[in-house]
Amino acid sequence: MTVPVDLVPVEPRVSAPFPPAAPPPPQHSPRGSARGAALLKEPFKVPTSPSQLRPPPAVGGGRPAAMALVETAVRGRLLPWPRVVLFGDSITEFSFQEGGWGASLASRLVRKCDVVNRGFSGYNSRWAKLILPRLIAGGAAAESTVAVTIFFGANDSALKDVNPRQHVPLEEYAANLTSMVRYLKSIDITEDRIILITPPPLQESAWEKECLAKGDKLNRRNATTGEYAQACVQVARDCGTDVLDLWTLMQKDQDFSCYLSDGLHLSMKGNNFLVGQLWSHLEKRLSALPSLLPYWRDVDPQNPEVSLLGAALQE
Amino acid sequence: MTVPVDLVPVEPRVSAPFPPAAPPPPQHSPRGSARGAALLKEPFKVPTSPSQLRPPPAVGGGRPAAMALVETAVRGRLLPWPRVVLFGDSITEFSFQEGGWGASLASRLVRKCDVVNRGFSGYNSRWAKLILPRLIAGGAAAESTVAVTIFFGANDSALKDVNPRQHVPLEEYAANLTSMVRYLKSIDITEDRIILITPPPLQESAWEKECLAKGDKLNRRNATTGEYAQACVQVARDCGTDVLDLWTLMQKDQDFSCYLSDGLHLSMKGNNFLVGQLWSHLEKRLSALPSLLPYWRDVDPQNPEVSLLGAALQE
Repeated sequence: MTVPVDLVPVEPRVSAPFPPAAPPPPQHSPRGSARGAALLKEPFKVPTSPSQLRPPPAVGGGRPAAMALVETAVRGRLLPWPRVVLFGDSITEFSFQEGGWGASLASRLVRKCDVVNRGFSGYNSRWAKLILPRLIAGGAAAESTVAVTIFFGANDSALKDVNPRQHVPLEEYAANLTSMVRYLKSIDITEDRIILITPPPLQESAWEKECLAKGDKLNRRNATTGEYAQACVQVARDCGTDVLDLWTLMQKDQDFSCYLSDGLHLSMKGNNFLVGQLWSHLEKRLSALPSLLPYWRDVDPQNPEVSLLGAALQE
Repeated sequence: MTVPVDLVPVEPRVSAPFPPAAPPPPQHSPRGSARGAALLKEPFKVPTSPSQLRPPPAVGGGRPAAMALVETAVRGRLLPWPRVVLFGDSITEFSFQEGGWGASLASRLVRKCDVVNRGFSGYNSRWAKLILPRLIAGGAAAESTVAVTIFFGANDSALKDVNPRQHVPLEEYAANLTSMVRYLKSIDITEDRIILITPPPLQESAWEKECLAKGDKLNRRNATTGEYAQACVQVARDCGTDVLDLWTLMQKDQDFSCYLSDGLHLSMKGNNFLVGQLWSHLEKRLSALPSLLPYWRDVDPQNPEVSLLGAALQE
């Protein structure tokens, strides 16, 4: 089944916020049995019309018996759908709001994997460490997890005397991050699939206004948050994971205030900055993921079953 | 453990595209054993400090043994995380792009369920019917699926003589939709969790430009798409599922051209329109879903384990 090159046009797309992803390779056929990390290594399998598979007749208005056979054969041959888990505090929880970095990531990775939001507004690393085993378990779920971002520190670095409820001591923050990475490794989510993200810098004047509006004093300091960011970078080094040092990157030779909406959370520009940076970390490892199910121009209209179910029926 | 009302403040949020969701009810505690549809019916469980559970000591810098015990106890007690599945063509596949209806839905449902994108650009209902069993299987995955949107017809209604590759006859389109609903019911995704969405209206002049740019003739007609929309509504009636008649709603007493970006796909305004309409269908059934894990102000800082793991440890 060969599709002439001139029949593969550019897909009409609604205005994309990013440069469109590379066009899907023709004739990819992710194998039903491939899972998680294996997917990253597995080359695209070019489907052939196997001699042992007699293509079912083209689907017309009424061939229920043949279709029932196909459906029965395919049932239980679930297509593994990888996922990226975003684990963090409010900056993660809000990441699917308009222009958010989570939604942008999901859009870039569409047909490749799901991007699931495990953001918990207000949480610190102490609480995060406790709930992580309730969010990601070992086995198939871990195998299908191709990347995890761990993004805490904005609450941990709250000042102890003004905000003791959220504050976590620096050493414990580092220990908690280490513990989370260790937990993930223990369920076979290897360090190459983990990305730590440091808290962004804090714009004290803007955040102070938010605090004052609630009758509180300024409860965070940029310099303190910077210490937590540094600790996060060190944990990543020690654990052999990737790290995105947002605190440093956002302050590098520029005024970072435009990246924040209220001094603490990300503005639209901050969301774009984060997803751009994160993408440079993820692209290299996730670009190898196959686009799931064939590009529509590659579906044989006479025998869609072969194009769409071929891999599953061969197993 | 009672939190005084005046201690539950409004959470600072970055600019939300929609009215913010209702604040999470205090002290909710979704049960680890509750699943899927059961979650919808299950009332919030107010956690108590059970006499049989001795709260572990507050986590300080170094109580690894106690923490290890907690972690061991919780392992395997995965918090069930419901999901909404968006199944459709390019209008679904592109739904996480900037301002997209899928991302908006995910934002509204954050901490309640995942919204996963199963959009396949260019696909028609004939192909969709074939792949559905590869995307949603029975068992736990079906149980956790609290809603499915089935959104095809924009490609099926392509004109047979100009676009035979995507065209599906009207009767077969209806039969395919019916078959998909039947499949979902067969794996215990009941009709009350299924929403059919009709194709949007087609703005012929704009879409013709797109076709001409590719050297093609206009390959769809609004009147024809309307017949498919009508068939979709009829299938929903016959199957007892909900339906969102986008084709009719977008043309009701208004010029619908603003809802489309290229005559076929949704513009930002069209995305907003769709998510607004869809939300009115989903809100009533998904608003009862508990917000997963406690609101941060409800976490007892002295005994976060009780707040965060209480339900899991009780099982």
